[in-house]
Amino acid sequence: MPFTYNDLTAHLKAISPVDQVFQDKARTRLDNLTKPLGALGRLEECAWRVAGIRRTITPDVSKKIIITFAGDHGVVAEGVSAVPAEVTPQMVANFLAGGAGVNVLANHVGAEVRVVDVGVAVPIVGEGLIQSKVKAGTDNIRIGPAMSEEEALASIHAGIRAARAAIDDGAGLLGTGDMGIGNTTPSAALFAQFLDLEPLEVTGRGTGISDEALAHKVQVIADALAVNQARCTSPVATLAALGGLEIAGICGLILEAARARIPVVVDGFISSAGALCAMRLNPHVVDYCFFSHMSAEQGHRLFFAEIGAEPLLHLGLRLGEGTGAALAMSIIEAGVKIMTQMATFGEAGVNHV
Amino acid sequence: MPFTYNDLTAHLKAISPVDQVFQDKARTRLDNLTKPLGALGRLEECAWRVAGIRRTITPDVSKKIIITFAGDHGVVAEGVSAVPAEVTPQMVANFLAGGAGVNVLANHVGAEVRVVDVGVAVPIVGEGLIQSKVKAGTDNIRIGPAMSEEEALASIHAGIRAARAAIDDGAGLLGTGDMGIGNTTPSAALFAQFLDLEPLEVTGRGTGISDEALAHKVQVIADALAVNQARCTSPVATLAALGGLEIAGICGLILEAARARIPVVVDGFISSAGALCAMRLNPHVVDYCFFSHMSAEQGHRLFFAEIGAEPLLHLGLRLGEGTGAALAMSIIEAGVKIMTQMATFGEAGVNHV
Repeated sequence: MPFTYNDLTAHLKAISPVDQVFQDKARTRLDNLTKPLGALGRLEECAWRVAGIRRTITPDVSKKIIITFAGDHGVVAEGVSAVPAEVTPQMVANFLAGGAGVNVLANHVGAEVRVVDVGVAVPIVGEGLIQSKVKAGTDNIRIGPAMSEEEALASIHAGIRAARAAIDDGAGLLGTGDMGIGNTTPSAALFAQFLDLEPLEVTGRGTGISDEALAHKVQVIADALAVNQARCTSPVATLAALGGLEIAGICGLILEAARARIPVVVDGFISSAGALCAMRLNPHVVDYCFFSHMSAEQGHRLFFAEIGAEPLLHLGLRLGEGTGAALAMSIIEAGVKIMTQMATFGEAGVNHV
Repeated sequence: MPFTYNDLTAHLKAISPVDQVFQDKARTRLDNLTKPLGALGRLEECAWRVAGIRRTITPDVSKKIIITFAGDHGVVAEGVSAVPAEVTPQMVANFLAGGAGVNVLANHVGAEVRVVDVGVAVPIVGEGLIQSKVKAGTDNIRIGPAMSEEEALASIHAGIRAARAAIDDGAGLLGTGDMGIGNTTPSAALFAQFLDLEPLEVTGRGTGISDEALAHKVQVIADALAVNQARCTSPVATLAALGGLEIAGICGLILEAARARIPVVVDGFISSAGALCAMRLNPHVVDYCFFSHMSAEQGHRLFFAEIGAEPLLHLGLRLGEGTGAALAMSIIEAGVKIMTQMATFGEAGVNHV
């Protein structure tokens, strides 16, 4: 049975605001721990935000699962990437073998990585791969829509299902990841469309293109926006017109995390495009999101300025995959442990001044 | 046998520059891993810096030890802190019981915490406490020197010994920490003196003083600088005149890490003051230091601008203890694991473009 607009509407209605009462209880707890008020800065913010999401001041975020969505992009035919599309399935194999950056960093922080094929251009198999292919890569957005609205809905549904399975397995903290050669181009197009920005402002060098190639990429994005403008009549229609299958999967994962009241760490530039779609579908979503890092990719800064959020890390990352999400998960878990494990002034016999 | 200026000179001579050859080997390795060139940003910088320090591209930083130095400050008599001095020994007890922020965060990242009493005003005992008391708190720097040069040397030596013991126990990564009510005041005085800055520029709210108390604290620091100016004839003399016993201990820890070629994570504002003393004694020291975070304490930014370094984290921390060092240790270890555990293009069968 296909996932319809009615199904999406029902899902969106099931997303509620986070709980202010538990945020306040968490703040009271944090203020009573053996440290000056607020001295652990953003760790404390992570803690009270998770408390508000999970409705408890003793949340368990120890089981951490990153879900990395893979898809290809017809627009690579326009020469927007320094890397050929065949690298997408090669990197999926690398994820499954445990040799990629996201594997190393997830392992470092005690997180699991799951990989979903939503739209890789070629058939791929591999132990552990979640097979949810909706389409063998998007169509070229410079000449038409990336996919149909039905395909966008199906990709969102793939994300919802992957998130649901992870939550059923006990995940207390989810993370997003992406793999798709060329996917900074649709992401930049989505930022430009949703945030009313110029292509030049949101277009960066991706895996590392030259000045000349960058100017070309800006033009391709401008063309994609022009040719698809009439189709961008709703968040899903915009996602279908300009997006990527993996970006839609990320959007779905975030929507399900918000519905299930599970905090979700949004990785870099591409994942933020998926988060922005989700936020346009239901504005409460942002309160369930933690943004891992400020990407080195130009345009990410404008996204944060627009939504009024601040990423946790500033480490010059621009890899995607969920690498930033892995590192940020550890920071968020640290914040939660501060709330749940530190001694209070009373317990420690320290003067509370 | 006291630690003399001759001993210090011999120690400083034993500190060499980091190894450029191993930095380059590490960069070559990093460039051959399955990711775009430089896409892991500062994680990669951490990796090649550790390689240059340890002289290997397969360094082991899994054993991580944070050493937290405690001392009291005569200048609290001037009302520069929102918190009374009795909290120093109370917090030392909290560290030993495992209930403080540094314990929770060190445990989270798999680091050990050791606590050294270099100068707490009252006698303290406790299981695990390293007893290296040089003096029962400094004298009031508003009216004279904090300590004698001999006491500064002895405190540096306490830091050297604690570092040496940790390295002998297998530490591949050290971290600094501090506990001392009032210690933002001597730290600010040291920054002002070493960096030729105005007291107003480097003085912040510490544990949380009012506007009025802040203005008073600035005046106390200005007075301390004036009364001690003639004594500030060398780095050790300056440390003796304006410093803290725990700050001198931190200085010693960093000097020993550099001598033994072990990377050391410098915690926040107070630890940076200790690092600055060490850097003034031997400029090579900076290449062995990783700076964990930009403190919310005003003046820390000027320190980084002056030395040309950038801290790893920007999380609004202002607790000290080694809390930021703990979080940063995990980032550095993540960078090292990227270098040692990620697959190369050849290993993974991914096109290297």
